[in-house]
Amino acid sequence: MKSDLTISQETQLQPISDIAKLAGIQAQELIPHGENKAKVKFSLLKRLDNAKRGKLVLVTAITPTPLGEGKTVTTIGLSQGMKKVGQKVMACIRQPSMGPVFGVKGGAAGGGYSQVAPMEELNLHLTGDIHAVTAAHNLAAAAIDARMYHEQKQGEGFAAKTGLPYLQIDPAQIVWGRVVDMNDRTLRRVTIGINREGSTANGVERESGFDITAASELMAILALSKDLKDLRARIGRVVLAYSVDGKPVTAEDIGVAGAMAAILRDAAQPTLMQSLEGVPTLVHAGPFANIAHGNSSIIADRMALRLADVVVTEGGFGSDMGFEKACNIKARAAGKTPDAAVVVATLRGLKANSGKYDLRPGQKLPDSIFAPDTEALAAGFANLKWHIENVNRYGVPVVVALNRFPQDTDEELAWLKAKVEVLGASVAVSEAFGKGGDGATELAELVLNALEQPAQFEFLYDAEQPIEAKLTTIAQAGYGGEGIELSAQAQADIEKLEALGYGALPVCMAKSPASISHDPALKGAPSGFTVPVRGLRLCAGAGFVYALTGNVMTMPGLSDRPGYLNIDIDEDGNITGIDE
Amino acid sequence: MKSDLTISQETQLQPISDIAKLAGIQAQELIPHGENKAKVKFSLLKRLDNAKRGKLVLVTAITPTPLGEGKTVTTIGLSQGMKKVGQKVMACIRQPSMGPVFGVKGGAAGGGYSQVAPMEELNLHLTGDIHAVTAAHNLAAAAIDARMYHEQKQGEGFAAKTGLPYLQIDPAQIVWGRVVDMNDRTLRRVTIGINREGSTANGVERESGFDITAASELMAILALSKDLKDLRARIGRVVLAYSVDGKPVTAEDIGVAGAMAAILRDAAQPTLMQSLEGVPTLVHAGPFANIAHGNSSIIADRMALRLADVVVTEGGFGSDMGFEKACNIKARAAGKTPDAAVVVATLRGLKANSGKYDLRPGQKLPDSIFAPDTEALAAGFANLKWHIENVNRYGVPVVVALNRFPQDTDEELAWLKAKVEVLGASVAVSEAFGKGGDGATELAELVLNALEQPAQFEFLYDAEQPIEAKLTTIAQAGYGGEGIELSAQAQADIEKLEALGYGALPVCMAKSPASISHDPALKGAPSGFTVPVRGLRLCAGAGFVYALTGNVMTMPGLSDRPGYLNIDIDEDGNITGIDE
Repeated sequence: MKSDLTISQETQLQPISDIAKLAGIQAQELIPHGENKAKVKFSLLKRLDNAKRGKLVLVTAITPTPLGEGKTVTTIGLSQGMKKVGQKVMACIRQPSMGPVFGVKGGAAGGGYSQVAPMEELNLHLTGDIHAVTAAHNLAAAAIDARMYHEQKQGEGFAAKTGLPYLQIDPAQIVWGRVVDMNDRTLRRVTIGINREGSTANGVERESGFDITAASELMAILALSKDLKDLRARIGRVVLAYSVDGKPVTAEDIGVAGAMAAILRDAAQPTLMQSLEGVPTLVHAGPFANIAHGNSSIIADRMALRLADVVVTEGGFGSDMGFEKACNIKARAAGKTPDAAVVVATLRGLKANSGKYDLRPGQKLPDSIFAPDTEALAAGFANLKWHIENVNRYGVPVVVALNRFPQDTDEELAWLKAKVEVLGASVAVSEAFGKGGDGATELAELVLNALEQPAQFEFLYDAEQPIEAKLTTIAQAGYGGEGIELSAQAQADIEKLEALGYGALPVCMAKSPASISHDPALKGAPSGFTVPVRGLRLCAGAGFVYALTGNVMTMPGLSDRPGYLNIDIDEDGNITGIDE
Repeated sequence: MKSDLTISQETQLQPISDIAKLAGIQAQELIPHGENKAKVKFSLLKRLDNAKRGKLVLVTAITPTPLGEGKTVTTIGLSQGMKKVGQKVMACIRQPSMGPVFGVKGGAAGGGYSQVAPMEELNLHLTGDIHAVTAAHNLAAAAIDARMYHEQKQGEGFAAKTGLPYLQIDPAQIVWGRVVDMNDRTLRRVTIGINREGSTANGVERESGFDITAASELMAILALSKDLKDLRARIGRVVLAYSVDGKPVTAEDIGVAGAMAAILRDAAQPTLMQSLEGVPTLVHAGPFANIAHGNSSIIADRMALRLADVVVTEGGFGSDMGFEKACNIKARAAGKTPDAAVVVATLRGLKANSGKYDLRPGQKLPDSIFAPDTEALAAGFANLKWHIENVNRYGVPVVVALNRFPQDTDEELAWLKAKVEVLGASVAVSEAFGKGGDGATELAELVLNALEQPAQFEFLYDAEQPIEAKLTTIAQAGYGGEGIELSAQAQADIEKLEALGYGALPVCMAKSPASISHDPALKGAPSGFTVPVRGLRLCAGAGFVYALTGNVMTMPGLSDRPGYLNIDIDEDGNITGIDE
């Protein structure tokens, strides 16, 4: 089969203005960025304020291998299948981070004949939203270090000289690091503000660190804001540091919130693209589901739901990750819960869940994982069963999509399908990768049936509960574990957050995606584990408390053979090797 | 008078497609980014390969105050004046850095009725070029640290395991830092790769630093490349580090040059905008003239010179800065020298050059500098005289533009004009700020006269000379000083660069813009000074050797009342306060 990039570059795309028209977006609501991309203006939401809302389908997955199980392939393939069976459909996906594009693997546009195109534009800058998040985040970081520097230099005279409040930021309690959209392990932990002897010109020395931009609270805010006004207010609430007497210092207090919002103004508008079969697709925000909430934006969903009858979107990683956060964080903020869910499973992914293979991020999967092996499949099946039950727990009708890879045998797929049917679940083999929408019409029909069922959505926890209770509920009901173990730091963090009045926020878990538990070594459907919580961070602007479990890192690294080695341009500027 | 932002927002702009048509750019050569901005494709250069080339006018200035003397106002005003007198004209300017936009002052779009519009789009992301430079630069930084980390971990087995050369990068000789488009003094000097006890997961610990993106060699490459092929080749030549046995390690050696070029592909195309009076303006690249070469791109000039009869561009700061580098670096790479130059002078700027005022970056000018004071003006006049003679030294016909501020009196302007005329120089008062093109028609006529004179261009130095000789020539003939003083580090740097075969590159001086000398305290036309050279850096991709003089910094800081305090958005997304 042809490579993803070849397929994408060979497809004759429609002008984005035609795609917009097809979606029901008017010309004056569109800001074209070349032939293939366009920002959609907020005026669309005003015009369609009273339009009927479509149904929201959320694509999730089993616990994935490091290469993913084809969730974006299925999201785009299902939307193309919906189009084939006559539905007015749109897809909503996240913007890929350049970190993984140049690091682990080449791109996140879907694959085969179910891609968002042009894939090289989606995978690089797109319309600059991630760059804007990086810039706004780092402006706040520069602002807080500069404020502390000038306050320390001028002392109590600062207020009189500048007319600004004297904030007395505690250098040991600056909770806002810097970000870069890159896999750069060397920046995880740094010392900044180092001065030449006898000088203070380089600011106040302290330890700090960089996260990947996808982990920025501003990325979460971009995804969770309803409109520009909400975005501006959320930015103002972001807590950057604490004063020496323990008071939160917000972006509003520093006077930088307005400038941050100005930087993010254009990024607040979703980008319209198209799938290879012309499904209008909104691309917006890019939080990772392990270190952030892992879902594309509420603004994009709001637009798509007014324009289309069916909107297909996805949450990152397995249903313990992006799906859980879509339900407990995003749906709460949006006031819109999913009407149906699709759990993507693959033969290779279930075999990996048998624990028989040692798979590592950044490394090729062994060929042997594609060989028939019903024993491994049966052992890994417990994982799929867990994810089906997990989605049912939220009261969301579920359909299982068996995402077929070219190497998969009919026998194994039939065996797996039968196993799922025994559970009473709706299941289809999806050949979206190899056949595009034609490979996903059966799946589309099953999802339409599921959408006819009344969803009886239930949150996993009540946000008003104490933080420890919410963490315990997520560990038990959300992951199937025994409970949680709080470090002394986590204990102290919880006390502080609750004392400051932030106890009633939902919780965003930073967790390994390689297991339903916190421990990547526990495959299948583990039980009996206790989730260690290392610490908690406040995301007052995003509107959640962020809990660090296990060893999850907020900045990836590059492997010894990173993806960038394959990427180049030719003399005409065509990009090569981005899918390798 | 109305604020710059109000004037910009009140002006009815033409659709960028109409501006393109006016400029002679065909629809298929344009990549629109909304209504007001468009990238111009390289195919234009192929189509117009044999077209007649227009004349290039380079706008420079006296030694400026920290707020600038209105060089961009004059560049845009002159181009509007050229249009008024019937010329087919284009302007080429640099993209403003967000660092100064949020730091010192609000924007770099020109001002009054001589602006590039919309000024808030120009001053923020534009079409993302600076973000692309930041990303490509930081990818190379992550790549080199990751390579060193994996090589150290795997030892000599690295080559066999990965199939990549074993480079043995010396951690003490990594010459590539990181960049951010922000004024962030705290990042000037940092320690990276700090590990928790007993772990090496965060890479190899070492001291490093961040520059502002405008100082990146990649920004210089973007500005100095002739086309995509040249850009790709230059990126490959960039030296990132040296091996333990002293061999240069390039971006090509690391295997990251292709990916860097892919990141910069779209940024290589200039962005078309318009002035308030509809002059087609190409915005491209943004090197600062104090810490880089300070001129917009060769690609933009190439396009504009094929499209227009007169192209007006500018070099940063005074003629000792951007103009010198336009002549000795950019013109050499472009194969096109300036046909005429404009030296911008102001009453306030010359008074500042009397040394009577203590002006500091980031602070308002005192009102007293606008009060009539012929004594200060006469004392500062030596500076203008020096800059006129400096331009003449290169054999470029010169016109002086007295850029009028609203507070200026007719008497002082007349006095100054007469003083310039005594020197035999062509001079006009420009009221481009207050009156747009109508305020610059006299200036335009004088520049057209100058363009009739045969330019007899001469480089200041022969690039083949040894580095020390080039430095000495720049200090003497270029600045009027006695010579140079090399630090031990600079001596060693020169020996190393010449031994490695990089001795025949032109020199890019990093120097204070606040004096013709290296010392910001020396106003007017100083003499008798010796320029201290602290060290030299190789920019093998940009094609120059970079010399650090005095205390010039490659990362600015935020003041105690930075520009971002004034910036915000309203509910409709209109940006406010960016011009304050």
